[in-house]
Amino acid sequence: MYGQLLLPELQEMLQQHDTLGLREFCDALHPAVIAQVIENLSNQEIWQVLDNCGLHRRVEIVEFLTMNRQLTLVREMDKDHLSALVRDMSPDNCVDLLEKMDQGEVDSLLQLLAQSQRNDIRRLLSYPDDSAGSIMTTEYASLPEGISVGEALNQLRLQAPNSETIYYVYIVDEDRRLRGFITLRSLILAKTSACVDAIMEKDVLSVRVTDDQEQVAQLMARYNFLAVPVVDQHHQLVGIITHDDVIDVLQEEATEDAQLLAAVQPMETGYLTTPLWTIAWKRGGWLLFLFCASFLSAHVLQSFQHLSKIYEWLALFVPLVIATGGNAASQTATLVIRTMALGELDKKSKYRLIQREFAIGLILGGSLTVCGFVLSLGLITPYQSLVVVGTVPLVVLTGTMIGAILPISLKSCGMDPALMSTPLIASLLDVFGIVLYFNVALALLGR
Amino acid sequence: MYGQLLLPELQEMLQQHDTLGLREFCDALHPAVIAQVIENLSNQEIWQVLDNCGLHRRVEIVEFLTMNRQLTLVREMDKDHLSALVRDMSPDNCVDLLEKMDQGEVDSLLQLLAQSQRNDIRRLLSYPDDSAGSIMTTEYASLPEGISVGEALNQLRLQAPNSETIYYVYIVDEDRRLRGFITLRSLILAKTSACVDAIMEKDVLSVRVTDDQEQVAQLMARYNFLAVPVVDQHHQLVGIITHDDVIDVLQEEATEDAQLLAAVQPMETGYLTTPLWTIAWKRGGWLLFLFCASFLSAHVLQSFQHLSKIYEWLALFVPLVIATGGNAASQTATLVIRTMALGELDKKSKYRLIQREFAIGLILGGSLTVCGFVLSLGLITPYQSLVVVGTVPLVVLTGTMIGAILPISLKSCGMDPALMSTPLIASLLDVFGIVLYFNVALALLGR
Repeated sequence: MYGQLLLPELQEMLQQHDTLGLREFCDALHPAVIAQVIENLSNQEIWQVLDNCGLHRRVEIVEFLTMNRQLTLVREMDKDHLSALVRDMSPDNCVDLLEKMDQGEVDSLLQLLAQSQRNDIRRLLSYPDDSAGSIMTTEYASLPEGISVGEALNQLRLQAPNSETIYYVYIVDEDRRLRGFITLRSLILAKTSACVDAIMEKDVLSVRVTDDQEQVAQLMARYNFLAVPVVDQHHQLVGIITHDDVIDVLQEEATEDAQLLAAVQPMETGYLTTPLWTIAWKRGGWLLFLFCASFLSAHVLQSFQHLSKIYEWLALFVPLVIATGGNAASQTATLVIRTMALGELDKKSKYRLIQREFAIGLILGGSLTVCGFVLSLGLITPYQSLVVVGTVPLVVLTGTMIGAILPISLKSCGMDPALMSTPLIASLLDVFGIVLYFNVALALLGR
Repeated sequence: MYGQLLLPELQEMLQQHDTLGLREFCDALHPAVIAQVIENLSNQEIWQVLDNCGLHRRVEIVEFLTMNRQLTLVREMDKDHLSALVRDMSPDNCVDLLEKMDQGEVDSLLQLLAQSQRNDIRRLLSYPDDSAGSIMTTEYASLPEGISVGEALNQLRLQAPNSETIYYVYIVDEDRRLRGFITLRSLILAKTSACVDAIMEKDVLSVRVTDDQEQVAQLMARYNFLAVPVVDQHHQLVGIITHDDVIDVLQEEATEDAQLLAAVQPMETGYLTTPLWTIAWKRGGWLLFLFCASFLSAHVLQSFQHLSKIYEWLALFVPLVIATGGNAASQTATLVIRTMALGELDKKSKYRLIQREFAIGLILGGSLTVCGFVLSLGLITPYQSLVVVGTVPLVVLTGTMIGAILPISLKSCGMDPALMSTPLIASLLDVFGIVLYFNVALALLGR
């Protein structure tokens, strides 16, 4: 909303080289607002704006730009500006950016950094995609054991500039093993002479650096944490994941699931910033696969052609029968996949879920039967109608069962259940539906 | 994961009436962990556990239980326990609970509270569902203008027990109008003699109490805020929304969208805690509607029956043609709806999006044509095959256009674009696909 309002004003300032105005624009607004507005400008214009603010602010603004824009900006930047920028970026944002660049670019960029920072970033880059390590930041506040609250507050003041948050502080021993955690709130409320060991929480929930980012996000969503500590295999503290990372992960995972469910290979950037050909590619593969699978339904139909030659009205209801099965299956699959994405499905409830879907399949299939009988009378005789309404409960039940069992099985095999997209399930149901329909016809009408 | 591990141990403690063990269980673990474990017990057993912890902890644990469980617990509670519990609950959680109860229950529960708290809750209950007011809490920390940092810290210490967060503090004037905001971090870093006015942020982003919760969540997700202030029409501060509320809203909205997209009326609680008949009801309506709509395809097929009598092979490819159109449309609709849900689609990009989908429709439709020609030769002659592959690009293009335009139009009318579910779009495409297919056949084969 801001973008639309402030853009014309900004463009005027740029045209008139209004340095004073530009400086005020950069200083007065929240960096996220500035990023949203300048996202609409050319790279060159963006630089014209950013030249009017201090380095720290410039980094803040760049970090709020979309990933695609950050990439093109960084690629056009001269070495001096670039090294200054990267040196000041928070390690997790820097790593997000580097992950999108090719090896050559990464190497030349890393050479601009000091040894210690380079090692830091190389380590973060080494964690697998989608792991806790890949989203954590190493800029956290930590304190040794046994100090007083007053001393703790003094140390925090020193650490603040290099910490993403000082509201959650972690207590570590000499080997940096995680021993406890304390909030700034409890430090403020405690007597300055008290010992941090006495007021720290000793039962700290932490995640492993190799844990899946989705699990971490679910954990934090459940516990309402501001941050969660990340430890390595020796229980040494290596980073923290903060609430804003969790929101990003949850949004990303929800988008990925929605895309997979619609048979679109997930994209790394937003729809509008992804190139046209990439989108076509990510959809084309699935569409082609489903298209080829559809030829199966043509072959199955052919095998029943002797029947549909005798009873020509049979062909009229093929789309109806297969659509109904597909719809019931899509409903079930989506509900099951979303329940799993929210981390609500444990082993015990899997069987309960399948039982429930069986019952729901019976209820829904049964209700449609009555309605279908009435509606079909406009096209066929009551006896013929029995073929249609006799098939409907069978395809609905097949649909709910396939929609429940396939995603659960995928998950059990360690795969993403959302891979079982609704179009894929629907095309399975096309084949099942046709087979069921013509077999019911055979049973009721004879050869 | 915890639930499964600790449950047997807890059940043993309950059987042996191990008060000491139960007390330790309640004290040592995070309330969210306790809630997860006791969720598996009966209401009576839950009370047996909760009797072993202080009131404050008891409230914390109850607030982490699922909404359904909270409801049944509260309904079975005697008046004394209930009033103690509700009095200690945070206003936003209390309101969440009351919103699920009927008017009689709400009235009798409110009578247990003191006048001021009752008024507070009545006001929160008066905000529309899904508004900022309905998710905010009134327990925030605020300071008057013009005081020193030292004085501010002292006041915060007093406010801390009744504030959900003291990390973001709001500065208000005598009429409680929002004047600025300050973080605890900057208070800690400032000199105690400095004036808060000098270090506070004056350009505070706030939301109106009537704003949509989804917009608020998008705002907070974009800006990485820990909390955002909520103001009324006079710019008076009335509450705050914190990061954990945002995560809840985002999860809720993603679930709602996923369900709508699969033609399921959104449920207020999780799949596993929603009663079977409710689920059947929420799905049955849509399924029945789509089922009735499918009869349209039967009627359309009937109107072309003269043609399929002559060319019997035509019927073989009906499922293929309509499935391909439906799949392309589902892909587009999902991408568009998700892009809108992330708040990334503004007015200007709408037209760009429709142009893009036109291009993508051409690309995808064209690629499938070649492949379809080859695959269909197993069933029909090359000339007949032209009918099939001639229809495919047309249905794919129709699919991408309908998939893009319908959700955007719904949104423009102020409706939820996810109402345009993929099964609904697919059943539209069934009809369009059949009409296109037989018209191409007419054109190429003649009557």
